[in-house]
Amino acid sequence: MAKLVLTTFDWVPDMPRGYVRDLRIRWALEEAGLPYSVESTSFKSRGAEHFAHQPFGQVPWLTHGEISLFESGAILHYLGHLGEGLLPRDDDMRLTAIEWLFAALNSVEMASLPWSLFVFSGDDSASPMRKQFDAFVHSRLQHLEPILAKREWMAGTFSVADIAMADVLRLLDRFGALADYAAARTYLDRATARPAFRKALADQMAHFAAAD
Amino acid sequence: MAKLVLTTFDWVPDMPRGYVRDLRIRWALEEAGLPYSVESTSFKSRGAEHFAHQPFGQVPWLTHGEISLFESGAILHYLGHLGEGLLPRDDDMRLTAIEWLFAALNSVEMASLPWSLFVFSGDDSASPMRKQFDAFVHSRLQHLEPILAKREWMAGTFSVADIAMADVLRLLDRFGALADYAAARTYLDRATARPAFRKALADQMAHFAAAD
Repeated sequence: MAKLVLTTFDWVPDMPRGYVRDLRIRWALEEAGLPYSVESTSFKSRGAEHFAHQPFGQVPWLTHGEISLFESGAILHYLGHLGEGLLPRDDDMRLTAIEWLFAALNSVEMASLPWSLFVFSGDDSASPMRKQFDAFVHSRLQHLEPILAKREWMAGTFSVADIAMADVLRLLDRFGALADYAAARTYLDRATARPAFRKALADQMAHFAAAD
Repeated sequence: MAKLVLTTFDWVPDMPRGYVRDLRIRWALEEAGLPYSVESTSFKSRGAEHFAHQPFGQVPWLTHGEISLFESGAILHYLGHLGEGLLPRDDDMRLTAIEWLFAALNSVEMASLPWSLFVFSGDDSASPMRKQFDAFVHSRLQHLEPILAKREWMAGTFSVADIAMADVLRLLDRFGALADYAAARTYLDRATARPAFRKALADQMAHFAAAD
């Protein structure tokens, strides 16, 4: 098989370490036991080659022979079909996994990421807009809670949907938003206890630490 | 083939009309020439059956025989494999289409939807958070502009990626954010000139008008 090469930044500030999206791809690659290497692109100077691979100047991107893919959701979808154990083989369960992959990234992260920008910025927590984004996040979490209480993984068995959902929930948990959601915390603990996640996180931290 | 049934709200306020996400699914179904019917669920009273189909209490969902799918991205992905003309047959182009489907929903809409909430709310346009979300949206548009200037459709031929991207851009255009992005406006004009879009939009407007 052609080589899999994951590209991330050479360095990032302390704040995003552990949360850069190459983590999702490392996690999937580790789960599937696919061999891969990691390369670096400059955080401080983003040139034409970077934009040729990732049009928004972000990371990660993945190359596989002649193929170059950006967007963590699209890479997870690709690896789901390439590797073992990332998408259920059963047709209905696979549809459910892809459904929740999109839901994690479009319904939940669309609430959680803007919310995190308010938290990062130390915005006045009583401002009308902050309240609106608080309500947005908690609406999503309230609806997720009964679902997470009833299932071990989003599609029955572990899949790329769980990588996306758990990583989205990690950012909320980092800032205390999961305090009142016992099922979400249990689900997140279960996901982040997986050896593939532990290795992916340790590898990302070591990668950025090596550049300090 | 089993029947395709798209469910949307029975009624919505004036503001979201023309922008409810069943539009994306109507558009795809019209492009593919797939026969479908439209059913309504109560906007004002969302019960257990609604949440069984759409766990966040939103719309749309699509049923196809025994299958019930929510999340507009997941439904577009499903229809892309079901119908004609929604995903390129060429493997590389199909990967590009799926890549941009995720990018539209996770990289671009994650900036545009929060931004639109500020605009809807009449938030002070000089507030630090508003400026941050303005910058987020314009960063995405600036990077999209050279890409849209060079291609007719995101994956070479028209695909579900264009349905997602054009609908995301429509919301930005509604509030004037595309004024300085000629390629984005040209792309959006090209997409919304398609007969399938015109019919989908007219049908959504008529559906909600019928409930007034």
